[in-house]
Amino acid sequence: MLHEDRLFPADEKTRAIARRLYDGIKDLPIVSPHGHTQAGWFARNEPFPDPVTLFVQPDHYVFRMLYSQGISFEELEIGNKPVKDPRKVWRIFADNYYLFRGTPSRLWLDYSFETLFGLTERLSAKTADHYYDTIEAKLREKEFLPRTLFERFKIEVLATTDSALDSLADHKAVRESGWKGRIVPTFRPDPVVDPAFPGFAQNVETLGKLTGENSPSWRGYLRALAARRQYFKTLGATATDHGHPTAMTADLSESKAEWLFGKVLQGEADAEHQELFRAQMLTEMARMSLEDGLVMQIHPGAVRNHNAKLFARYGRDMGADIPAPTNYVHALKPLLDLFGNEPGLSIILFTLDETTFSRELAPLAGHYPCLRLGPPWWFFDSPEGMLRFRELVTETAGFYNTAGFNDDTRAFLSIPARHDVARRSDAAFLARMVAEHQLDEDEAVELAQELTVGLVRKAYKL
Amino acid sequence: MLHEDRLFPADEKTRAIARRLYDGIKDLPIVSPHGHTQAGWFARNEPFPDPVTLFVQPDHYVFRMLYSQGISFEELEIGNKPVKDPRKVWRIFADNYYLFRGTPSRLWLDYSFETLFGLTERLSAKTADHYYDTIEAKLREKEFLPRTLFERFKIEVLATTDSALDSLADHKAVRESGWKGRIVPTFRPDPVVDPAFPGFAQNVETLGKLTGENSPSWRGYLRALAARRQYFKTLGATATDHGHPTAMTADLSESKAEWLFGKVLQGEADAEHQELFRAQMLTEMARMSLEDGLVMQIHPGAVRNHNAKLFARYGRDMGADIPAPTNYVHALKPLLDLFGNEPGLSIILFTLDETTFSRELAPLAGHYPCLRLGPPWWFFDSPEGMLRFRELVTETAGFYNTAGFNDDTRAFLSIPARHDVARRSDAAFLARMVAEHQLDEDEAVELAQELTVGLVRKAYKL
Amino acid sequence: MLHEDRLFPADEKTRAIARRLYDGIKDLPIVSPHGHTQAGWFARNEPFPDPVTLFVQPDHYVFRMLYSQGISFEELEIGNKPVKDPRKVWRIFADNYYLFRGTPSRLWLDYSFETLFGLTERLSAKTADHYYDTIEAKLREKEFLPRTLFERFKIEVLATTDSALDSLADHKAVRESGWKGRIVPTFRPDPVVDPAFPGFAQNVETLGKLTGENSPSWRGYLRALAARRQYFKTLGATATDHGHPTAMTADLSESKAEWLFGKVLQGEADAEHQELFRAQMLTEMARMSLEDGLVMQIHPGAVRNHNAKLFARYGRDMGADIPAPTNYVHALKPLLDLFGNEPGLSIILFTLDETTFSRELAPLAGHYPCLRLGPPWWFFDSPEGMLRFRELVTETAGFYNTAGFNDDTRAFLSIPARHDVARRSDAAFLARMVAEHQLDEDEAVELAQELTVGLVRKAYKL
Repeated sequence: MLHEDRLFPADEKTRAIARRLYDGIKDLPIVSPHGHTQAGWFARNEPFPDPVTLFVQPDHYVFRMLYSQGISFEELEIGNKPVKDPRKVWRIFADNYYLFRGTPSRLWLDYSFETLFGLTERLSAKTADHYYDTIEAKLREKEFLPRTLFERFKIEVLATTDSALDSLADHKAVRESGWKGRIVPTFRPDPVVDPAFPGFAQNVETLGKLTGENSPSWRGYLRALAARRQYFKTLGATATDHGHPTAMTADLSESKAEWLFGKVLQGEADAEHQELFRAQMLTEMARMSLEDGLVMQIHPGAVRNHNAKLFARYGRDMGADIPAPTNYVHALKPLLDLFGNEPGLSIILFTLDETTFSRELAPLAGHYPCLRLGPPWWFFDSPEGMLRFRELVTETAGFYNTAGFNDDTRAFLSIPARHDVARRSDAAFLARMVAEHQLDEDEAVELAQELTVGLVRKAYKL
Repeated sequence: MLHEDRLFPADEKTRAIARRLYDGIKDLPIVSPHGHTQAGWFARNEPFPDPVTLFVQPDHYVFRMLYSQGISFEELEIGNKPVKDPRKVWRIFADNYYLFRGTPSRLWLDYSFETLFGLTERLSAKTADHYYDTIEAKLREKEFLPRTLFERFKIEVLATTDSALDSLADHKAVRESGWKGRIVPTFRPDPVVDPAFPGFAQNVETLGKLTGENSPSWRGYLRALAARRQYFKTLGATATDHGHPTAMTADLSESKAEWLFGKVLQGEADAEHQELFRAQMLTEMARMSLEDGLVMQIHPGAVRNHNAKLFARYGRDMGADIPAPTNYVHALKPLLDLFGNEPGLSIILFTLDETTFSRELAPLAGHYPCLRLGPPWWFFDSPEGMLRFRELVTETAGFYNTAGFNDDTRAFLSIPARHDVARRSDAAFLARMVAEHQLDEDEAVELAQELTVGLVRKAYKL
Repeated sequence: MLHEDRLFPADEKTRAIARRLYDGIKDLPIVSPHGHTQAGWFARNEPFPDPVTLFVQPDHYVFRMLYSQGISFEELEIGNKPVKDPRKVWRIFADNYYLFRGTPSRLWLDYSFETLFGLTERLSAKTADHYYDTIEAKLREKEFLPRTLFERFKIEVLATTDSALDSLADHKAVRESGWKGRIVPTFRPDPVVDPAFPGFAQNVETLGKLTGENSPSWRGYLRALAARRQYFKTLGATATDHGHPTAMTADLSESKAEWLFGKVLQGEADAEHQELFRAQMLTEMARMSLEDGLVMQIHPGAVRNHNAKLFARYGRDMGADIPAPTNYVHALKPLLDLFGNEPGLSIILFTLDETTFSRELAPLAGHYPCLRLGPPWWFFDSPEGMLRFRELVTETAGFYNTAGFNDDTRAFLSIPARHDVARRSDAAFLARMVAEHQLDEDEAVELAQELTVGLVRKAYKL
């Protein structure tokens, strides 16, 4: 199923260059600085369960496509733990596998099927059971335990994303286990800095308890956040992550911030004040980053849980987050006015609104020393998305203001596939620049290394 | 003039694949589910008049380009019925035919000139009279009567677009004529649901009379609309069409809706209330679609009649409609909150704001079961427009959440040309995916069929 | 360093076409209708100083990239006149030259290095001193005097951009020198029509004095502007240039305009009223253009001086201008309602928001006879930027509603390099159209000439 030249330009001369560039990077270790795998897998090192729990249930790329074509969550047993009839669900998936034609899910899945399970005939109604049986059998083998796969994937470091309230017990367990795999947490404070987050006031109280900062004052709250960041650092964290609806930042006076904190804590803030509070908190996080050196990641622009009925029944992360227009040039100005020229600050920006790449993000990152651009994210973690990213960003921000690749996945088995797509896409882009004589090939070789491991290590301090 | 490989990628290997894919679809019947041809042509089956009335006067793509370069409507006799000196107008058109280089109009026109009239030397000042004489002569032949052309074009079904107030007499006449060509109306309620439409209150009154719902009440009005939709269905309609300035929808209480209806009817609504009424009416139309099964088409985003002086003198549809930024993610939420998960509903979304393809439309259509994406529309019904559409949409929504091609034309003779451009463009896109090993060729063959006839028949219930 | 086929498509057949098209235009004269070189260079005809003052200091493309990677303005001696240790700055530049990989700066610089200074090994730490010595030595030679370079570059006409308050003494000196190089000013009234411009009221007073219109009345002010435009015309100006934050225009009554003028003059206008005044002044400028025939250029959409600390210390034009979303369809309507159909008016539109190309600018220019589209500007004056421009614009507006190339540069030595990139990019775009049989090659040959010299001469009346 996997052609050795997949994702390379058709033109033979360009393809040959792409192949050479790819050969130089394909075996480099995987640096995964942002994602949503679970430290517990590696703490416990238990076998992954059935094929459906592995490939269908946790993957919103997969079940959103099936849902869009009229297949219900009931049929797919979304939310069932354990899945009652995984083979039946698998057959539905196989019958509808043609829906994924032209999507990155198809690329990732085929890669896993073939390289991990030795499956070489396309998944379909006909091959459904063969797939199911093969995968199920392999999952019981030792070579398919999480730690073994981690090593086999040549993962140099894997970052998870963790609530500020998480005990990080699994991270501790990994560290104490003696196993050498490097797994680090990422500080995600949304539950305690976003007043619209379910249970916000309760979360802030919990944060206070966790850090011994019980006073519900603005200063105490900031001290609690700083302390929690320190705790994450002791377990290896190098970065924070912020998933606000917008990129808005603010620079309020301390008294105004204190007043606003009181308001949001008492649940009296309207949408505008909630937004202002989040804005101020991005600025506070930047201020703390200057102190403790954690790299900030800002992931704005998703309208979460757009499907009201699915949200009411199934909760968050059900494939119904939809991007919205996002602004950076005005939104980030308060933060940048304060800290934009600080050599000690690192902020990695992401977007779900591709119009901002050439209009705002590349010009900003091509000027401010604290800014780097994260890779194309989520819906744009795909060959066309990566191509557009490079085309829209490189001429203004260059390559060196970008931050390498993120797999950003919940699906552990897809990690090598995703990095492979990124490496091939970058090789293809660079090959075209060489073929059109914008770069010499020795430069492209060097750049391919940077885009694969160099820039990500530097940007994330890994 | 027409090279057999036009619009195929230059790379020989990819071109060969494109050629094979195109060969498999080029002779498929034409399914035309959305357009602006006239049922009367087929009811009366009279010869088309002179070349200018056929090619210049009705085609806003053509006369807007000429106008943009300083050629006046007077010179082009826009609005004159009949045209006084068609040969003179034709010569102006021919002299300026070079202006269309690089535009889809050029592709469509050359196709018609060569395949229908056997003209093989480029249109220019030099060939103007030869063109005129040849076309004029052919138009008098029997093979150029509307019904004969319809059959020669292998049109399986042709949908017109009709005001809710239209008697559909021509549609009835076609049905009663014994001729077998399938021509169906589309229910376009803008004149009776858009308070900004000229004569809105009068139109609503007429609607009441047509349906026997004479009471000017909200419920009576809704009953009248439902009845009129039924009437369209009896003459073959499978779809409705909505050309609002925005995609805004609303979910008002019945009492609020009733109050608003009164306000717009009395001409007392400001722009904001007019917009809210249109928003509510999109939701009402969705509710009725759930009842009667008509597929909804939403075509938002045009600022109509932007050129005030031309509008004052010549009226609507004078080539001066200009797109504006359009939002879907917030605008459609009220409607989707109500009906977004209903298996019985089908909504086909269009846009004139290409930024929404990857940011909003593909994520929405890749999740909600009721949504499909219409083809690139109007200014984007073009090779580059189609390429961008596939590149921006496919990775998130796949192919199967799209709805095939619309020719959307007033120019009957351009129908085969437009479908040919679409087929070639799709073949080119699929060929690249095959050449880059993202799809196998057998899958591309199947997809080419789907993009040409399968998806459109299904999406429009044809 | 410079491959003869650079920027041409890799596909051999397409590349051969591109090469033929380029051969037909590469030696055409340079028409440079918009830029920021200094007439004084040609008035005085003195040698350019050291390499740093030539290549680093004036080029915000160069120093913004270095700054974004943490190199301070102090290290680069930005603002120092003269530069104290140019060789040290040059070495920093050379050490970091790899940062420009993939940017147009790299293309422009390599072109100048090789074609003007005979340097053929890439700039790097290793070659830094060799570069410095070679360039410094050449700059002392006669062939490197400004007028000699002007002739060697085959510049047919070079427009500068000049404040409405500029005496144009250098322009006069060039004219009176007997030298035949054609250098013309451009009327840039921002300092006297933008109330947010530093010293606005003072500037308006100066304008009055310069024109003998000392009364601070609205009518006197308009007369002063008209008189100043006339003065620019006597020195060869054919165009005006407007760098407003937005494209907003207005059509105020005379009494409202007069009132607003008083308000802005007294410094009492808030941001909204300042914007309204600028909007009205665009309309007034169009009205004057109808009288005096000057072509209007509108360059909206930059948030100027985004970096507050750099602005406070170094002032304007420090590489920290960032684009913002820009609207044209609503913004231009008041002006177009008044003058959009006037045959005597010419307006060239630019954008930093590429989303407007296909959505607003091409539809507007493809309809209104007074509108032409300027080339991709600033961050988009690059191979990918030019490709996107043609792809997004051509199908709707054609080629003939565009206005050729602008180099828009402060860096005199980069002029041939920039025009060369534009010619190669256009040749590449046209070659693809020929290879895909959308154009015949004889048409592409004609178009290449038009895009290089024909359209720009016509659009700018040069």
